[in-house]
Amino acid sequence: MDEVFRRLDDIREDLTALYKDLHAHPELSFQEHRTAAEVARRLEALGLEVTSGVGRTGVVGVLRNGTGPTVLLRADFDALPVLEQTGLDYASTQRATAADGSDVPVMHACGHDMHVTSLLGALDLLIAARSRWSGTVVAVFQPAEEIGAGARAMLDDGFLERFPRPDVCLGQHVFPFQSGFVGMMSGPSMSAADSVKITMFGRGGHGSQPQNAIDPVVMASATVMRLQTVVSREVSGDDTAVVTVGSIRAGTKENIIPDQAELLVNIRSFDERVRERVLAAVRRIVRAEAIASGAEREPEFEQLTRFPLLVNDPDATSRTTGALRAALGDHAVLDLPPAMASEDVGLFGSAAGVPTCYWFFGGTEPGRFQRALAEDRVAQEVPANHSPGFAPEIEPTLTTGVKALTAATLEWLA
Amino acid sequence: MDEVFRRLDDIREDLTALYKDLHAHPELSFQEHRTAAEVARRLEALGLEVTSGVGRTGVVGVLRNGTGPTVLLRADFDALPVLEQTGLDYASTQRATAADGSDVPVMHACGHDMHVTSLLGALDLLIAARSRWSGTVVAVFQPAEEIGAGARAMLDDGFLERFPRPDVCLGQHVFPFQSGFVGMMSGPSMSAADSVKITMFGRGGHGSQPQNAIDPVVMASATVMRLQTVVSREVSGDDTAVVTVGSIRAGTKENIIPDQAELLVNIRSFDERVRERVLAAVRRIVRAEAIASGAEREPEFEQLTRFPLLVNDPDATSRTTGALRAALGDHAVLDLPPAMASEDVGLFGSAAGVPTCYWFFGGTEPGRFQRALAEDRVAQEVPANHSPGFAPEIEPTLTTGVKALTAATLEWLA
Amino acid sequence: MDEVFRRLDDIREDLTALYKDLHAHPELSFQEHRTAAEVARRLEALGLEVTSGVGRTGVVGVLRNGTGPTVLLRADFDALPVLEQTGLDYASTQRATAADGSDVPVMHACGHDMHVTSLLGALDLLIAARSRWSGTVVAVFQPAEEIGAGARAMLDDGFLERFPRPDVCLGQHVFPFQSGFVGMMSGPSMSAADSVKITMFGRGGHGSQPQNAIDPVVMASATVMRLQTVVSREVSGDDTAVVTVGSIRAGTKENIIPDQAELLVNIRSFDERVRERVLAAVRRIVRAEAIASGAEREPEFEQLTRFPLLVNDPDATSRTTGALRAALGDHAVLDLPPAMASEDVGLFGSAAGVPTCYWFFGGTEPGRFQRALAEDRVAQEVPANHSPGFAPEIEPTLTTGVKALTAATLEWLA
Amino acid sequence: MDEVFRRLDDIREDLTALYKDLHAHPELSFQEHRTAAEVARRLEALGLEVTSGVGRTGVVGVLRNGTGPTVLLRADFDALPVLEQTGLDYASTQRATAADGSDVPVMHACGHDMHVTSLLGALDLLIAARSRWSGTVVAVFQPAEEIGAGARAMLDDGFLERFPRPDVCLGQHVFPFQSGFVGMMSGPSMSAADSVKITMFGRGGHGSQPQNAIDPVVMASATVMRLQTVVSREVSGDDTAVVTVGSIRAGTKENIIPDQAELLVNIRSFDERVRERVLAAVRRIVRAEAIASGAEREPEFEQLTRFPLLVNDPDATSRTTGALRAALGDHAVLDLPPAMASEDVGLFGSAAGVPTCYWFFGGTEPGRFQRALAEDRVAQEVPANHSPGFAPEIEPTLTTGVKALTAATLEWLA
Repeated sequence: MDEVFRRLDDIREDLTALYKDLHAHPELSFQEHRTAAEVARRLEALGLEVTSGVGRTGVVGVLRNGTGPTVLLRADFDALPVLEQTGLDYASTQRATAADGSDVPVMHACGHDMHVTSLLGALDLLIAARSRWSGTVVAVFQPAEEIGAGARAMLDDGFLERFPRPDVCLGQHVFPFQSGFVGMMSGPSMSAADSVKITMFGRGGHGSQPQNAIDPVVMASATVMRLQTVVSREVSGDDTAVVTVGSIRAGTKENIIPDQAELLVNIRSFDERVRERVLAAVRRIVRAEAIASGAEREPEFEQLTRFPLLVNDPDATSRTTGALRAALGDHAVLDLPPAMASEDVGLFGSAAGVPTCYWFFGGTEPGRFQRALAEDRVAQEVPANHSPGFAPEIEPTLTTGVKALTAATLEWLA
Repeated sequence: MDEVFRRLDDIREDLTALYKDLHAHPELSFQEHRTAAEVARRLEALGLEVTSGVGRTGVVGVLRNGTGPTVLLRADFDALPVLEQTGLDYASTQRATAADGSDVPVMHACGHDMHVTSLLGALDLLIAARSRWSGTVVAVFQPAEEIGAGARAMLDDGFLERFPRPDVCLGQHVFPFQSGFVGMMSGPSMSAADSVKITMFGRGGHGSQPQNAIDPVVMASATVMRLQTVVSREVSGDDTAVVTVGSIRAGTKENIIPDQAELLVNIRSFDERVRERVLAAVRRIVRAEAIASGAEREPEFEQLTRFPLLVNDPDATSRTTGALRAALGDHAVLDLPPAMASEDVGLFGSAAGVPTCYWFFGGTEPGRFQRALAEDRVAQEVPANHSPGFAPEIEPTLTTGVKALTAATLEWLA
Repeated sequence: MDEVFRRLDDIREDLTALYKDLHAHPELSFQEHRTAAEVARRLEALGLEVTSGVGRTGVVGVLRNGTGPTVLLRADFDALPVLEQTGLDYASTQRATAADGSDVPVMHACGHDMHVTSLLGALDLLIAARSRWSGTVVAVFQPAEEIGAGARAMLDDGFLERFPRPDVCLGQHVFPFQSGFVGMMSGPSMSAADSVKITMFGRGGHGSQPQNAIDPVVMASATVMRLQTVVSREVSGDDTAVVTVGSIRAGTKENIIPDQAELLVNIRSFDERVRERVLAAVRRIVRAEAIASGAEREPEFEQLTRFPLLVNDPDATSRTTGALRAALGDHAVLDLPPAMASEDVGLFGSAAGVPTCYWFFGGTEPGRFQRALAEDRVAQEVPANHSPGFAPEIEPTLTTGVKALTAATLEWLA
Repeated sequence: MDEVFRRLDDIREDLTALYKDLHAHPELSFQEHRTAAEVARRLEALGLEVTSGVGRTGVVGVLRNGTGPTVLLRADFDALPVLEQTGLDYASTQRATAADGSDVPVMHACGHDMHVTSLLGALDLLIAARSRWSGTVVAVFQPAEEIGAGARAMLDDGFLERFPRPDVCLGQHVFPFQSGFVGMMSGPSMSAADSVKITMFGRGGHGSQPQNAIDPVVMASATVMRLQTVVSREVSGDDTAVVTVGSIRAGTKENIIPDQAELLVNIRSFDERVRERVLAAVRRIVRAEAIASGAEREPEFEQLTRFPLLVNDPDATSRTTGALRAALGDHAVLDLPPAMASEDVGLFGSAAGVPTCYWFFGGTEPGRFQRALAEDRVAQEVPANHSPGFAPEIEPTLTTGVKALTAATLEWLA
């Protein structure tokens, strides 16, 4: 394996430059045109069969190398409406027009640039080592992961019919732990996440005459308080769910009772049964609180995003973990508990009916992480994904990401 | 008195034109430059001593007519950021830049245009009838009543020192009841109103990790629910108070816990002791709910506006009521209960230590009002002040307003 | 009138002894057998036509004195389950079995003993002065006022058919203000009061497994918080209502989730429309909060007591007030605002379709009252009705009560 | 091992009779005099060194058998104030005086009678098989487990100094799963449980005058709602905590605002850090809600019971599990997740600084359990501990309990 990895020394400089370029040019979900073009150009240069525009802006590269299983390797490539504050010399200064028409800053605040670079690096190593394996690699560069829509879009665009059907789906995500390490999760691994916009309707009026109005501020506030009981009373201590009202908005003037209120709610769960119970409880409570206020119109629910539960196949994870231990050293492979974060990568495996193994690789400079750990201040000191200060330390993060993907793929194809 | 009123026939056409012009050209608080100039021009034409720029945009006209008492007559002249939807051919299409920099529509949605026109008409009648009275009339055209700042600004600008000190302060407001009628209130008549902006501070975080955040959505919602107890538990059934949270705002994304929440609160009361208890209770509750959430920073309170309680002097009101009964007929003078609405007119009398008498005059077309009354649908069918459909029926509203002011003034000066 | 009142000097000692005896022997609602017997005995001694057992334990005495109108004079005579703590040498040490079977202390904590004594005294004076008036007096000694059931019981027992139909209904209640004074109220004078027992049903379970239970503690608590909005949001500042949850009870063990919760709610109002809106809002909220909790069974509502709104007829009150001013002196007759207290006396007038005039007479020792007033500590220092320390100062309370009833009656019959 | 177990056939009848006798004669915590006497009598008959009155009513038997390690075997023997509704012919009809002086029914609703019987049986088998092992067995019959006080009382009574110091602590609890099976948990296995009585102080008053009172019903209800946020917002999805308000009590009359409210709160956790955060949050919220109400007196907290977290030592559990698999068959030994139930057995091991292994054994008749499982109605159909219908099916529960304890002990001493 060391021999396979040696090729990395030849391409590291190029990959680093690519990473910095991607980082400086982030693009919002389904707007990843520049990124997709660069990916497609490089896949072609590597000799893969390349298809662009899969699921709007997705790119698929197929690398055939004789008979054998098919491994799907997935990297997502969209960025976020966050104003970068890393201070890096390759920091983003990009802005874009968001889906709601507003002008927003854009930043690779979730490390998808590192995912793309690692996958392109791994493909290069696999090609260089093609004599050591046989089978097919399907490299998936997925758009719009951040809004939970990209995997679904690619599948709806005929992905399973148009490209070789995988036997296993692999992928990885950079995360705020020590760079150089990978973290494996088995079974239910990343939470299902449902985002719902709830509009509750009152009746507007003058602030001095509440008796002629139906106050949506009170209605929404009572609802927020009642929603706390979903987790506190309806979810077993053995199960896990989080219900967050991330936004509440009603009214603009102190002396005008507005006519509606809006809640944005995010729901996390690790079990479909729990998820359904929680969603039903949220709907039940919202409707009942509207009744309690005497609302004349039913609340409206709009599903904003839906991320499925990510289940790592225990056997596939065990096998992949073994390969990563061999490749990176036992010490560098951690067992992690399920993460209260969400991903749509699992849809590929679910749709194909094959196992998924998705892991984390660390992105935090080792010294910084160790200091924060010693002081029990990791949450405070280490910028997390989606924060304005989040950016993986390029090395050894990139090397680890390339090696991990390469080794995992070879495990299935060698 | 009929003789005095006869002059109205000569000027009604001009007053009507003036009213329509003012209605079509509303101006926001402290931006009433065009209105002030027109008022000053007319006051000068009537022969009064005119001072402009009192309290930024206010105008004062003094009419001296021999020895005797001094009567202050007050009309306010600012408009509101409301998009007019009356369908009138003289409806406003004006827009202006609000204090917060935003571009807003402007409308005379509170009838101040009718107040100005009525006062100018009354001054004309009083001049025509100057042989019948002696004393001094101080005509006050006040800016910025809508934000509770104009009377204070004029007083702070030396009003009491620069102009003859009044013996009584009179004024009137158009209201959504039958045109042709006036309504008198005695004692505490219009509520004190305090508007407060409250900012509560949590700690932001990812929606999936509430344990690392201090959720301001929950903090603010709990506060709204608790604030309901101020009126339900801390105000006697014999007293009156209204506490309205007109706006609650926190967060923008469903999966991000924001770091603060903002409440806009409006408090009405009819008694200083009740007012102080309510304000203290609001502060106590807000602070305690921040503590309950474990907030690391105290909530902030910003007083947005403050309207004083309007107390009509019972004797002055009784005397004025008698005059209006004589002038308009007994049937046209109603006794009204205190109004849950606010005014800063009372500051003039309080500052001077003299009685105030302030009354309402109806603005709704009689047939429309009677039909609504018969169907018990006044609240639904008759547009109230501040609503986009509010506009007084010009006649007999204007005639009633002019007559009422004239008759009341003559009562004190004849 | 002084001549009429002179008779009081002859009977004061006897009345005082009667009062102390009644005070020492209080009886619960519908258990007033000893009191009723004593009343009947005295009425017979006075020569009235006496009927006992009207509405279970009520007593009616009819005093005919020629042609003329009929005046109903009403005194209630039941006591309360309160442990007397007055320290008086004639304090009650009685106990009784309450309607729920429990053994309770009994006390005349609402002064009905004074009502009985005053009415018997007034009847004596009226008989002594029978040459000065003609007509009929119907003396009503009513049971079970405290539970709002006695007037209804007497009416249901054929009161209007069995006894001369009144032209006016008069009565009085001792109240914690200065003895020697009476207080008059006109129009809506004493609140309607509805008491409701609400049972909310959850599903019991182990405290560690809320997911298998439906928590009635949370359900009831959310309901209490929501009920605060009835007064704060659904009752106009111009109207008056009080909604008090006087008791909440659920569960007995910390680690057992109980299966139901009980709320005892008291609702006061001064207007039938407000009353109906408030009652409907309470029911709506209770039902909705049960739905919000996912309750499997509808909440149950049981009306415990219902006191009607007492409306004093303005003309009858004006006339009676004049008589009391003449009899007691202008200074001794106060105008009082409506009282947030309840009475069923009004049912007699409502049923007969005739005016009611019901007033208060002070029971607090003058010096004590004046000191408390000076210190603004009346609420703290003067024991109110229903408190363990409440007992009218016998004089001048008794004299005032007798005189007031006598003078008021003569006003209608002289 | 089969040979060791054969002895059970000789004593099963006697043990069954003992079990029925214990079941019919349950005793409350620290009142286990009859039970303790019977236990002591039997231990002496078996030839152990017996000490009674350890920790008030506890009994310790020491069985010495040569050199070797010391194994502590613990059975708890108190019962509960529950009215038995099993319908068994040996059902309890006992009553007793509870700590608060009330007369209550008593029932072995938690199976401690089965624990005692199983331990006595195991001691018999161990004595019969004494040639197969060497070392010391300390048999602990603990009082007052139900109130979390017995283990502490025995330790405070010099347990560690007075008796041979254990090398490992073993014990077992009957649980509502299939009889014949045992269930093992490793690591944090049974929750810490803190029970707190909270008294919140308002100011009483008449229900019609809330402005003169401080309403403890509202205060307590707001607190209950806010307490829901402890679990929903302050406990990570990765952690486990349950906060149950099992009882809320305030007031007795609908129209009297009471002066205090009482909450009984039960808190479960699996991690000391989580426990401390939750307890601190509960105290913070209770205090803040008292402040929000303007309470004049601080809330009071009384710790009712405290059960520690039970941590099964992984190595000891692994070793014991192996022994039980060998003795009962692999199929009969289940791996269970941590239980949201609490025990004070762990205090012995903690105090001695040695490992604990505590397991469950099933008590439900196999057919009944299988049917319930098939219908997914275990929670509904199988009576759980502390319920009036809970009683282990004597066989094979007793046999399994004796075998499991015997086999586990031999594992450590053979």
